[in-house]
Amino acid sequence: MLTVNSIPSPFGRLAEQDRSRRAAGLRRELRPRPAESALLDLAGNDYLGLARHPRVVRAGADACLRWGAGATGSRLVTGSTALHAELEAELADFTGFEAALVFASGYAANLAAVTALTDAGTLLVSDAGNHASLIDGCRLSRARTEVVRHADPEAVRKALAGHGGEAVVVSDAVFSVDGDAAPLPALAAACRAHGAALLLDDAHGLGVLGEGGRGSAHGAGLAGAPDVVCTATLSKALGAQGGVVLGPAAVIDHLVNAGRTFIFDTGLAPAAAGAALEALRLLRAEPERAGQARAVARGFHRRLTSRGLDATAPDACVVSVRAPSPQEAVDWAARCRAEGVAVGCFRPPSVPDGVSRLRLTARGDLTGREIGGAVDVIARTAPPGGGEVSDGPGQDPGRI
Amino acid sequence: MLTVNSIPSPFGRLAEQDRSRRAAGLRRELRPRPAESALLDLAGNDYLGLARHPRVVRAGADACLRWGAGATGSRLVTGSTALHAELEAELADFTGFEAALVFASGYAANLAAVTALTDAGTLLVSDAGNHASLIDGCRLSRARTEVVRHADPEAVRKALAGHGGEAVVVSDAVFSVDGDAAPLPALAAACRAHGAALLLDDAHGLGVLGEGGRGSAHGAGLAGAPDVVCTATLSKALGAQGGVVLGPAAVIDHLVNAGRTFIFDTGLAPAAAGAALEALRLLRAEPERAGQARAVARGFHRRLTSRGLDATAPDACVVSVRAPSPQEAVDWAARCRAEGVAVGCFRPPSVPDGVSRLRLTARGDLTGREIGGAVDVIARTAPPGGGEVSDGPGQDPGRI
Repeated sequence: MLTVNSIPSPFGRLAEQDRSRRAAGLRRELRPRPAESALLDLAGNDYLGLARHPRVVRAGADACLRWGAGATGSRLVTGSTALHAELEAELADFTGFEAALVFASGYAANLAAVTALTDAGTLLVSDAGNHASLIDGCRLSRARTEVVRHADPEAVRKALAGHGGEAVVVSDAVFSVDGDAAPLPALAAACRAHGAALLLDDAHGLGVLGEGGRGSAHGAGLAGAPDVVCTATLSKALGAQGGVVLGPAAVIDHLVNAGRTFIFDTGLAPAAAGAALEALRLLRAEPERAGQARAVARGFHRRLTSRGLDATAPDACVVSVRAPSPQEAVDWAARCRAEGVAVGCFRPPSVPDGVSRLRLTARGDLTGREIGGAVDVIARTAPPGGGEVSDGPGQDPGRI
Repeated sequence: MLTVNSIPSPFGRLAEQDRSRRAAGLRRELRPRPAESALLDLAGNDYLGLARHPRVVRAGADACLRWGAGATGSRLVTGSTALHAELEAELADFTGFEAALVFASGYAANLAAVTALTDAGTLLVSDAGNHASLIDGCRLSRARTEVVRHADPEAVRKALAGHGGEAVVVSDAVFSVDGDAAPLPALAAACRAHGAALLLDDAHGLGVLGEGGRGSAHGAGLAGAPDVVCTATLSKALGAQGGVVLGPAAVIDHLVNAGRTFIFDTGLAPAAAGAALEALRLLRAEPERAGQARAVARGFHRRLTSRGLDATAPDACVVSVRAPSPQEAVDWAARCRAEGVAVGCFRPPSVPDGVSRLRLTARGDLTGREIGGAVDVIARTAPPGGGEVSDGPGQDPGRI
């Protein structure tokens, strides 16, 4: 056998790609954070401030001690505990769907929902702004996928009209980059006019939208409908980890039997299940948390635009601010961080339209003082001419 | 808008599929387990008995209390903690690879590794017995995939010889259904003869194979090689949740920049990271745990075959026993359960060759008395003529 040093790397091409990324200002590096930080966090998706809530972390810790650190197997073998069943019943009841199925991640939930609900004869109609996990679900499925203009129910109608058989329309309920909500009533009407199913990803809506945070589908009167399936994460408003598919019992039963990322993946760890369950109960007991988070987001938007920045109007808890280039977005975010404010920085390929932005997330527990201070830092550190409101190119999210 | 009751279901086809599954004995149902059970568990993948080890669950609980119930964001935004970095450094050091990257699940790790290390010009050579997550990775990648006969390095050589450009050979290091190990030295030699990369999934080898459980690649002298990338789970021998990719630093850096299931997924929950780290340290301190688990597996095999059952010889901790049909496998597993022994039951589509089996997993902490009692139950409840050694069809795993 050859000695290790004499073996040529088959990954030489990666060095070239690394150089290109550096030159374009698109190189990413991990920056591990400490347990305690003086930074104001406007980058995470902990919309309700529950990830470190004493009751939530206590429930997570207790579940780990009682049920074990892992589920020990796939959900169909040893990985389903009574805790998983309790969480699923509570998620279905809260969101108004007939049944629920919990996955190890939201990504896995989306892959299973898209692939198991379609076959070679299905038409998938997919919004151009959809999350990567839905896009990968479309790629993995054997269905034909037609990508339609972002948030355009008329385009959905046209795509469906050109197809005679089964169809599934797939859309984020709240888009992760700009935080805009999908036009759910018009989308549902388009689906119903053609007998198509509607599959929504409510990762950014659960806990934030709908009455007391019951989610986008509930808010639009679509929860529990026989033609609507909804996915969500347990890792954003619920502060834990995992994903869920919500829908008619027959659909959930089908996913148990045919969802590859369900059947062939280890079940969600008990700590995450226990924490998510406690977060859900906390939200039920304090339904005003959802409205508070949305109000904080609107406050950010109002103050940012009054400072002349090009910020998107939030439908949920995400506010994005346009930056002139990937490198300027990175530098801007670094200046914010140096002044004590952590903001997200989205660049290609994480943005469907190629426009880089700062991405701010609202948390229901932020004070007016914190919001004001953060807006001041963001405005003060803006690149020259960057982030300002303009009518020029870059205003339209456009298509993938 | 229509009232919910008047909306026809677009999922009518699922009822038909459900009927077919019932008729074929292939319907699956969840069976949530209690926290404490008198059943002897031979179905989970907790090979070292660490999922409920006091130190491991304490570390998971403490991580949840200290770092929060969730990572709060994707790894590139807020989801990387110092705990994740510590776990990655420890995993790389233990397995002998240059660098490591932790994912929310092993499934996600495999999807990222296969897709990010290939492009449209790459040839993927994939073993016919590979795990669903590797198969889905091949489907998601833009590369051409050639599926080769199970555990056949000569077939790999032939596939590589017919291709001029970049190639990646993908294989489970230990196959999950029958527990057989891949022929690693011959596979690596075939790859090196053609300048191809070798991508191994060591989900069932980490913690069990190699010196002190350092994994299959370490055991075969392949750890740290510039042409080898290895994935594994944190949810089997390490008793927690999550996945990891191990490889050259340039490969790991590339995954940070191009792995979609890394970039677009919430980071692994701190409880799982903390528990896996403690399990790893425990294994380092007590390296004999790996050998004990393998010895238990060999004990199962020896006793099962001496009772006339058709059991596979285990290379790691999985022993499978052939059953005559899906329904008889289900009934056999139910009889075992009624007598206090929980065994896995693998049926199509979870088996690459369509042959149903009972699947037993060894745990290092089982006593001789427990092993003997379990074998007695399995043999006593075997279907008439089923599970017995034969030379007829069904002996060869064959191809997908």
